[in-house]
Amino acid sequence: MSLGLRGATAFAPATVANVAVGFDILGFAVEAAGDRVRVTRAKEPSVTILEITDDAGAPFGPGIPLDPSRNTATVGLSALLEERRLDFGFEVSISKGIALGSGLGGSAASAVAALVAANALLERPLAAEDLMPFALLGEQAASGAIHPDNVAPCLLGGLTLVTSLSPFRCVRLPVPREILTVLVHPRLRVDTRGARRLLRAEVPLADLVKQTASLAGFVAGCYTDDLELIRQSLRDHVVEPQRATLIPAFAEVKAAALAEGALGASISGSGPTVFAWVASPEAAERVRHSMLRAFMEHGGAEADSWVSPVSEHGARVLNEE
Amino acid sequence: MSLGLRGATAFAPATVANVAVGFDILGFAVEAAGDRVRVTRAKEPSVTILEITDDAGAPFGPGIPLDPSRNTATVGLSALLEERRLDFGFEVSISKGIALGSGLGGSAASAVAALVAANALLERPLAAEDLMPFALLGEQAASGAIHPDNVAPCLLGGLTLVTSLSPFRCVRLPVPREILTVLVHPRLRVDTRGARRLLRAEVPLADLVKQTASLAGFVAGCYTDDLELIRQSLRDHVVEPQRATLIPAFAEVKAAALAEGALGASISGSGPTVFAWVASPEAAERVRHSMLRAFMEHGGAEADSWVSPVSEHGARVLNEE
Repeated sequence: MSLGLRGATAFAPATVANVAVGFDILGFAVEAAGDRVRVTRAKEPSVTILEITDDAGAPFGPGIPLDPSRNTATVGLSALLEERRLDFGFEVSISKGIALGSGLGGSAASAVAALVAANALLERPLAAEDLMPFALLGEQAASGAIHPDNVAPCLLGGLTLVTSLSPFRCVRLPVPREILTVLVHPRLRVDTRGARRLLRAEVPLADLVKQTASLAGFVAGCYTDDLELIRQSLRDHVVEPQRATLIPAFAEVKAAALAEGALGASISGSGPTVFAWVASPEAAERVRHSMLRAFMEHGGAEADSWVSPVSEHGARVLNEE
Repeated sequence: MSLGLRGATAFAPATVANVAVGFDILGFAVEAAGDRVRVTRAKEPSVTILEITDDAGAPFGPGIPLDPSRNTATVGLSALLEERRLDFGFEVSISKGIALGSGLGGSAASAVAALVAANALLERPLAAEDLMPFALLGEQAASGAIHPDNVAPCLLGGLTLVTSLSPFRCVRLPVPREILTVLVHPRLRVDTRGARRLLRAEVPLADLVKQTASLAGFVAGCYTDDLELIRQSLRDHVVEPQRATLIPAFAEVKAAALAEGALGASISGSGPTVFAWVASPEAAERVRHSMLRAFMEHGGAEADSWVSPVSEHGARVLNEE
């Protein structure tokens, strides 16, 4: 029961979508970064954005619309207002911990954090999964397409496979306990809409066969704790080859990760962040350094980097007022 | 050690390939029928076909080449002869228990049974998996394409996912113990090469997303014994819609299966056999009858039918001489 709450703040984690084998259906949450959204009750049943800051509280640069009908964090809130016929509104303050256009699911995180915070203010809060349709509306505002592979793990945590959009259904896949993710984000920005437009509308049937073999092998490897099968399977035959050119030195960065023992490496979401899966903390450090070096030497790009397990935890309320 | 063996007879089971979600990568063995091949030693290092009969021993009608360089059962044997530099040859008698062009993996079964029988005659027999490359040559002779989704379960049994062709790698997926397969084979013949040529060379990206979601959901459902997830996932968005028109009354037969509680129904291999998965013997009988009736009423076709679990057993030697 949340009657009387004036406001709530929620955190939503960064996520890696696509995961080489699961374009638009697979993603996982990481402990690398996240967005924080504070939502307070307003008298009028409408949605207002009060401020957008970085995670140190400084005003966020341009690039995110303040118009609530176009902002990923507020589109879902407006739909929630309408569907629940609420007689109050929301004022929203967004703290972006995830760099814009990094490929780490920043728009999904803002949408999800806003919804989780707002949900805490409802007299009868929705179950987390029931927030999905609203979060997807926000994601659609950001990327122009409905794709759930960031939103689902951001909301629910873990390595999440979306098996159906409507009705929304997903499955949490097990992750072998040794697995760590290395994330390297070169300080470049990729436009998500552009990265999506770049994809060919058709895929050769032979590539579909390879991609499905990799996907099924990856899922089987996760269920059976078979790291060797995961290593053989964590390969993207469809999307990575088309998007790799958007990221300077991608081939060298990926090769550097594999040379240091990564099970696989590919583009996080639409990039430019590159992720790698490794099977030990030592490998994680070696892989992280080799990827950073490759970005610098071959791409001339400084980069931020993280090492994180796949996070069991999705978005959550941090505090209530 | 098989020194001194004069001959051996092997059985290889019928198989269901594609399984709706795994075009060219997934198949399973059934106990419905199979091919039997007797291989005896010949003095000269060459391969000869002595006879081809049906499983009652009557001469097999036209349609299978007697030329060993074109027959699916002997192409692999010739390659085996050459690679192992054998100083003797093989005489082959083929007993076809699987109807030609039925979509039940008859060419794979002949190729596999011949290899398993011949392998028993070698001084140092190969491991079953190492027979795969030879069996694939036979399959290529039959269909014009290398596709392992019949050969792998035929040789190894079970529900088999091929994750890589070269090097050959496969994974046995678990099957929930309730699962039974209903097979209905209308007395029509589909030309496998033709069925393959009919497929578009390109697949819409949106269909790839749906197909991968179904495949991954199906694999997850098998690992977690989740019949409801299997029911939601056992759907072909890519190949079945293109091949359905080759089979008279396919839509009605599939609808009849689903109406009687089948978890899913689709084309076995390139058809015209239609398979359904069900979760009880009672459902199997209901589904079988409804599919037979639909074939008769809407397609005007008599049909043979079987109910079988997914067979754990692949090809095996029946006797040695």
